Amino acid sequence: MATNDGHGENSSYFDGWKAYDSNPFHPTDNPEGVIQMGLAENTLCLDLIQEWIKNNPKASICTEEGVSEFKNIANFQDYHGLPEFREAVAKFMGEVRGGRIDFDPDRIVMSGGATGAAEIMAFCLADPGDAFLVPTPYYPAFDRDLRWRTGIRLLPIQCKSSNHFKITQTALESAYEIAQQANIRVKGVMVANPSNPLGTALDRETLKTLVSFINAKRIHLICDEIFAGTVFKEPHFVGISEILEDYPKEDPNRDRSLIHITYSLSKDLGLPGFRVGVVYSYNDAVVRCARRMSSFGLVSSQTQYLLAYMLSDGEFTTKLIEEIRRRLSKRHEFFTSRLAKVGIQCLESNAGLFCWMDLRHLLKEFTVEGELELWRMIINDVKLNVSPGSSFHCSEPGWFRVCFANMDDETMEIALRRIESFVRRTKEAAVKARKKWCQRSGLRLSLPRKFEDMATITSSLMSPRSPLVPATTSALVV
Amino acid sequence: MATNDGHGENSSYFDGWKAYDSNPFHPTDNPEGVIQMGLAENTLCLDLIQEWIKNNPKASICTEEGVSEFKNIANFQDYHGLPEFREAVAKFMGEVRGGRIDFDPDRIVMSGGATGAAEIMAFCLADPGDAFLVPTPYYPAFDRDLRWRTGIRLLPIQCKSSNHFKITQTALESAYEIAQQANIRVKGVMVANPSNPLGTALDRETLKTLVSFINAKRIHLICDEIFAGTVFKEPHFVGISEILEDYPKEDPNRDRSLIHITYSLSKDLGLPGFRVGVVYSYNDAVVRCARRMSSFGLVSSQTQYLLAYMLSDGEFTTKLIEEIRRRLSKRHEFFTSRLAKVGIQCLESNAGLFCWMDLRHLLKEFTVEGELELWRMIINDVKLNVSPGSSFHCSEPGWFRVCFANMDDETMEIALRRIESFVRRTKEAAVKARKKWCQRSGLRLSLPRKFEDMATITSSLMSPRSPLVPATTSALVV
Repeated sequence: MATNDGHGENSSYFDGWKAYDSNPFHPTDNPEGVIQMGLAENTLCLDLIQEWIKNNPKASICTEEGVSEFKNIANFQDYHGLPEFREAVAKFMGEVRGGRIDFDPDRIVMSGGATGAAEIMAFCLADPGDAFLVPTPYYPAFDRDLRWRTGIRLLPIQCKSSNHFKITQTALESAYEIAQQANIRVKGVMVANPSNPLGTALDRETLKTLVSFINAKRIHLICDEIFAGTVFKEPHFVGISEILEDYPKEDPNRDRSLIHITYSLSKDLGLPGFRVGVVYSYNDAVVRCARRMSSFGLVSSQTQYLLAYMLSDGEFTTKLIEEIRRRLSKRHEFFTSRLAKVGIQCLESNAGLFCWMDLRHLLKEFTVEGELELWRMIINDVKLNVSPGSSFHCSEPGWFRVCFANMDDETMEIALRRIESFVRRTKEAAVKARKKWCQRSGLRLSLPRKFEDMATITSSLMSPRSPLVPATTSALVV
Repeated sequence: MATNDGHGENSSYFDGWKAYDSNPFHPTDNPEGVIQMGLAENTLCLDLIQEWIKNNPKASICTEEGVSEFKNIANFQDYHGLPEFREAVAKFMGEVRGGRIDFDPDRIVMSGGATGAAEIMAFCLADPGDAFLVPTPYYPAFDRDLRWRTGIRLLPIQCKSSNHFKITQTALESAYEIAQQANIRVKGVMVANPSNPLGTALDRETLKTLVSFINAKRIHLICDEIFAGTVFKEPHFVGISEILEDYPKEDPNRDRSLIHITYSLSKDLGLPGFRVGVVYSYNDAVVRCARRMSSFGLVSSQTQYLLAYMLSDGEFTTKLIEEIRRRLSKRHEFFTSRLAKVGIQCLESNAGLFCWMDLRHLLKEFTVEGELELWRMIINDVKLNVSPGSSFHCSEPGWFRVCFANMDDETMEIALRRIESFVRRTKEAAVKARKKWCQRSGLRLSLPRKFEDMATITSSLMSPRSPLVPATTSALVV
């Protein structure tokens, strides 16, 4: 593997990171640098966690209050994990789901972040050459996590903007059919709920469609719920566990042995450095196997100990979960409304740390190449690292994922101003181009007073050939 | 994989752990329980680390002195790791090797313990079906770490007690030859230096034999040096890096691109809970690939931060390394000399957290079954969890690995008394059996005054059929 390129780090998703890495924005040291909007991080509530840490020195084995536990904990390597840790994580997973579901601590299996959790699922459930179906657009690193070392394949379930990228029965059947025709054994469906990059949580109907589908085919359903705690707007989050409760006891769809969840504290709590991943399976054989595999990516016992304390403090976690939602909602509202003012729409969403931004009207051509050209402009001229839809295997060009929860208010303001200025420049260039065109063709030019409004209204009329030339001149020629 | 048994957890090595788990010794709560001598843990110096932690609150992001760094560190997820961490680990690796070698921080790749490091090596260097050659006896969990998910094979390099289990040119060639005849592609040799379970560090000559061999075959050499810091007796530890320096600049054997090291802080520092594994390769492509793979088992940033502080405190690490050696040496000397007094010899060793105990004279029969029968007696009657040689793929029955650094002095004393009492009972039973035999056959019985001496001298004469019946009666019949 050291000599091949299966990792997928050469996609534009990672290229954007490299552009950021070589010239990172800093408010005083490098104010012209690239602002990182390509990283789905949640830093909005770390101050609350930091405050809790300060007030709870017993939670650490490195404080005077906790150091007497150092020897025991440093030496603890049972792959079941500290019982208190598993209990606290199970409790927290329930809380994030509104307390409507109980999770069994004995089914909590540790992994090296969600990255490790996804790979463990693939190793447990599929053999090399087998496939999982994954709705598009999907998280680019699934290609690394699920495929790279396991040798399994990911086959797209094609979702479209025309119905808000929903997963339909037809799309599921079609993906399955294609696999069968290619003689590929499908072992499961992997969905992210809420979706990364869409920022939308799955509704009950879609989840039930999935459950029926995988039961009909006798394949597995893996729900990546690592953004469960980021659902900041109604409808509230509905996890797969809750759906299973909906079925009457005798309904075969209630069978849980095909259902598995991956979870993590990286996104919901903004603790990616701690590498806390979880595999939660309703299948005993999978729990057993996953636990054995967890030896390759156990959570540091130092970190287990701290989180066991923190997540078992119910008063704190209740407040924290609420506050995370409140701040995410506020930031999302602020960001999307400012974008709307300059004519940029995002897919309507209720979760996640990002927006799925629609820039189709700015494409020169409706191709992946057109999308990447615009993306390079955004990276190099606007100096924002956003991620192009093609890197998420999106089937339609012109969509971009923009992360909004990994920066402070000041940086967000600068990012927004850059976007506003970019749109303004783009429009001015369009006006110039039109003027030239009109002068050349002897037509009189008349512009509406509020150019912005026009631009918004006519955005869908823009030529697929160039962001600078509208498709029709009807609004310009009086 | 969830439905097959490739993990290998059903070997007797792990069975012993289960016996311990179901009835663990405790000095007051369960004084008749099983004492754990099957776990290569190093708890002898944790008091020193704990003391350092107490005196250095700035090293933790959870103390008043360090909490201001909490946000940055909790959010840090670069797979290169904290630069300070990599530097401190590189420095420490050099110190453990007597400061004779410099390690490059940019070649330090993190992994989920040595478990993850070994697997990364296998994934990087071999394809499914390829093989690594491994000298026997070897660490049982190599089967899990190197084979289970990668699909590679391990082929034994047969080492024998007749030359103290040394790795010879002949044994290497023979293992390679067998692979070739079976049409298996050999991609490398994996050696543990110091060896687990032997407790012996490789000498310069053996290391050079290995370097010549892998260069001649153009295959890789992976040195698992996770016990480097446990060499408690002369000759001092010589790592593979030091050997490479020995060759003249123009010597092709000096080529480093085939050389890789795995390391960990679990054994040398007794911190297995912290899950700090390291892949150190001299091959750039391997470093790159391994780093990408490290995403599946990064070290918690909380733990990186703490260790960066601790391992960069040179005054402390110098003292710590010395004291670890001193205490291990003392414990080893105490343990082996007490064993010797009751006629039990161990392979002469200078490293590790265990002895390779020779119980061949106690076997009823010289087979794996005979070994396991004795082992079950030790587990169930003597109530010590030791590990039978067959679980280490040893080619000769009768050897057992006994760990001595994972318990306090009091528990060690109890363990030794149990062994002493076991040997006494065994001898008494032997005497009875002999008496009976003599009475039956009408011979007069005469025992030497110092029965212990005799048992020691005649151990090699014991019948392979039973520990109770000596092979000859010459010493008994006057």
